[in-house]
Amino acid sequence: MSEHAQRTDRADEAITRLEQIVREGDDVAPQRAREMSTLLEAIPLKDVVNLIERLTPVRAALILRLLPRRQSIAVFDALNAGHQADLVDALGTDSLAAFFEVLEPDDRVSLLDELPAEIAELLMRSLDESDHGLTNVILGYPKGSMGRHMSPAVPMVRVTATAGDALTALREQNDRVETIYTVPVVTDDRKLVGVTSLRQLLMAAPEEPVASLMDRPIYAHTSDEDEETARWFLALDLLALPVVDDSTRLVGLLSIDDAVDIIEDADHEDTARSGGSEPLQQPYLTTPVWRLVRSRIVWLGVLAVSALLTVSVLDAFEDALAAAVVLSLFIPLITGTGGNTGNQAATTVTRSLALGDVRKRDVLPVMWRETRVGLLLGAMLGVFFGVLLGVFYGASIGVVLGVTLFAVCTLAATVGGIMPLVAKAVGADPAVFSNPFITTFVDAAGLIIYFLIAKAVLGV
Amino acid sequence: MSEHAQRTDRADEAITRLEQIVREGDDVAPQRAREMSTLLEAIPLKDVVNLIERLTPVRAALILRLLPRRQSIAVFDALNAGHQADLVDALGTDSLAAFFEVLEPDDRVSLLDELPAEIAELLMRSLDESDHGLTNVILGYPKGSMGRHMSPAVPMVRVTATAGDALTALREQNDRVETIYTVPVVTDDRKLVGVTSLRQLLMAAPEEPVASLMDRPIYAHTSDEDEETARWFLALDLLALPVVDDSTRLVGLLSIDDAVDIIEDADHEDTARSGGSEPLQQPYLTTPVWRLVRSRIVWLGVLAVSALLTVSVLDAFEDALAAAVVLSLFIPLITGTGGNTGNQAATTVTRSLALGDVRKRDVLPVMWRETRVGLLLGAMLGVFFGVLLGVFYGASIGVVLGVTLFAVCTLAATVGGIMPLVAKAVGADPAVFSNPFITTFVDAAGLIIYFLIAKAVLGV
Repeated sequence: MSEHAQRTDRADEAITRLEQIVREGDDVAPQRAREMSTLLEAIPLKDVVNLIERLTPVRAALILRLLPRRQSIAVFDALNAGHQADLVDALGTDSLAAFFEVLEPDDRVSLLDELPAEIAELLMRSLDESDHGLTNVILGYPKGSMGRHMSPAVPMVRVTATAGDALTALREQNDRVETIYTVPVVTDDRKLVGVTSLRQLLMAAPEEPVASLMDRPIYAHTSDEDEETARWFLALDLLALPVVDDSTRLVGLLSIDDAVDIIEDADHEDTARSGGSEPLQQPYLTTPVWRLVRSRIVWLGVLAVSALLTVSVLDAFEDALAAAVVLSLFIPLITGTGGNTGNQAATTVTRSLALGDVRKRDVLPVMWRETRVGLLLGAMLGVFFGVLLGVFYGASIGVVLGVTLFAVCTLAATVGGIMPLVAKAVGADPAVFSNPFITTFVDAAGLIIYFLIAKAVLGV
Repeated sequence: MSEHAQRTDRADEAITRLEQIVREGDDVAPQRAREMSTLLEAIPLKDVVNLIERLTPVRAALILRLLPRRQSIAVFDALNAGHQADLVDALGTDSLAAFFEVLEPDDRVSLLDELPAEIAELLMRSLDESDHGLTNVILGYPKGSMGRHMSPAVPMVRVTATAGDALTALREQNDRVETIYTVPVVTDDRKLVGVTSLRQLLMAAPEEPVASLMDRPIYAHTSDEDEETARWFLALDLLALPVVDDSTRLVGLLSIDDAVDIIEDADHEDTARSGGSEPLQQPYLTTPVWRLVRSRIVWLGVLAVSALLTVSVLDAFEDALAAAVVLSLFIPLITGTGGNTGNQAATTVTRSLALGDVRKRDVLPVMWRETRVGLLLGAMLGVFFGVLLGVFYGASIGVVLGVTLFAVCTLAATVGGIMPLVAKAVGADPAVFSNPFITTFVDAAGLIIYFLIAKAVLGV
């Protein structure tokens, strides 16, 4: 057996054992402190993070206290703000303050956003002056803006300096900055004129001027929208992105791991909402059932109520249904296929919007593509099911369903494709807005088409 | 108007104008080369990337050629492998070789994966010996493994060295390594014993031993699954992750931007597949319609065919439908609500699986939570619609629908919750497997429940 496999096994055993102990009860566990510490040593940090996310706050806090300080900090740092906030009571404000202190200003602010005002205040007061200042800077920017995520503790070198001067400057700035690898180059009045890197400075001759070692700066503005900025920043494979104010003065730096957090939060929300529920602020297994219910009931209700539209449509065609009961057999097939076709189109376009491949103004090209896609999909399904069902339920039923599926797919793809763009245009979240609208609209419209065709063909 | 706004406007105008020109036709554009180059200067790199992704290969290639070399490289690098591959013909193998050469070994391999064998060979031959070697190393690892994504050009310092020695060593390694910021510490036989950083080495006194500057290493194995590894790596906010073989010998380094690419590709696939279509390998607007159709028809067909199950269920209850036509009015309401409840549960659990909050073995706790959630959701919807529809269609219909919705929601949530775990257990992709299965199963089961209750209550 390879060392790797062995190592993993030992870790798994340790994890399982540790979970047994904490599950034995909140009072038993503490007495086992020594045993638990030993077990923890066998567990890689990443698994400790996962473990803690699966435990109740009280038990998670216990594990955090048992970890060596540096590791407990790393673990706490790796938790999302929502989960960090859940640990407040269990940790007690003192140990929390200790963690709070070592967080980067931007992470500190995300945590503050999750905390009750009085605790937030308490923590802020626990900070030394400079940290307090930096945190307040970030708090000053609106949620969803780059200012909220950047680190104001940014390194910088003068454009007039030499590589040697720059390295000395960076050594002096080292203690107060988050990263020193991406180095913004500024004028005397702090205007951003270029970007260089510790690597370039280190490899250059000490007398070489910084001006000859810098690239044309790629940067963002404090007011820029966070998700969009994070996406293009990540696409460019940079380590950090300088952030400037409206007069291009350097005010902060967005590090790549902050950008990653922005995207993951955004994706988390999108997946949840396109699945018809609100995103959870803490790990699934530790989320109270009532919170899960709350995160889903609204959407479920909206969708169910809008489904009443289909009831009234069918009600309007009750005569046709009575005359030919067989028609009711295919209702789920038609609404289902319509909904699926619409969602396929909506998902693809929503994703392309997020990636910037498609923009609001692309309504017409998108519409035209989806109509053609819908026509082709509809033709294939229409012919297949028309023939198949024609064999079992008679030619005329076959015709009705073939034509209906053809029409419904074309309609669904077209509507599904432009819906995310409409959502974006009216300032709604495409992932949220598209799904229920398409379901409702396509179901109702599809059934109307179905019965009109049926009446025409069957003459009911 | 702020400089920022002005700058953005200029860029937008330039983009729009540039698109006009290229859209005028593939033969017109080249004659406008000078005008286009000027326009390009006004456009930030990130927008050039977006622009190129929206253009046909021929036009994209033209823009790439007009860019200054360093910028064109950055842009090409920012495109995904699928889109890079589409540019092959338009660029011609010579200019392609130029780009290919400057890609990191791991990016080179992703591009090779997308190319026809003969072109791949051609490009490989264009590499110098060392690049050729490094690329082959990566090609040697199976798709989906860390080995495929790591950079074999990894910096390293001996554990016996001093900070001073280490810096000298890094200066020598600089030309051949991808990053020098995360510095693995190894024994004489290349075993990984720690990790330090250029920052620590630079700030330490030159005579300080590396051993005192390194942390306990967090690392991955070449055989580790790429998506899972990338996720925990990103959660820990590190810049790079050492990759070792089974005897913990250092063989490569995964940089954070490679990890980001892994996650984005994975998320892209998941969103697409949970939306019922195959992920596109190139931007939406430049994907041929027939490719869009191909990416959707299979799923659509599978779902539609499985919907035949509902047809046969309804067929079996045709007598009940004939006796009480009113029953058919609520079919979409029931199947729709069931499907939505199931998808809510499935989406949440799938996401938690990806994040590691939930593991395969958690089937029972998940099932128990979702059953309770389903009971509560079902109770609320059941009461609401039971009363509402009771008012319009008579008490007995109200009872039938109330009870049905209650039962269907409970069933749907439970099944939807465990389905991703079952998928994972049988080695299928939860995002793909859950959706169609839930729809089919819940629709059919829901209708059976509906009619059994109807028969019992209405005695039809």
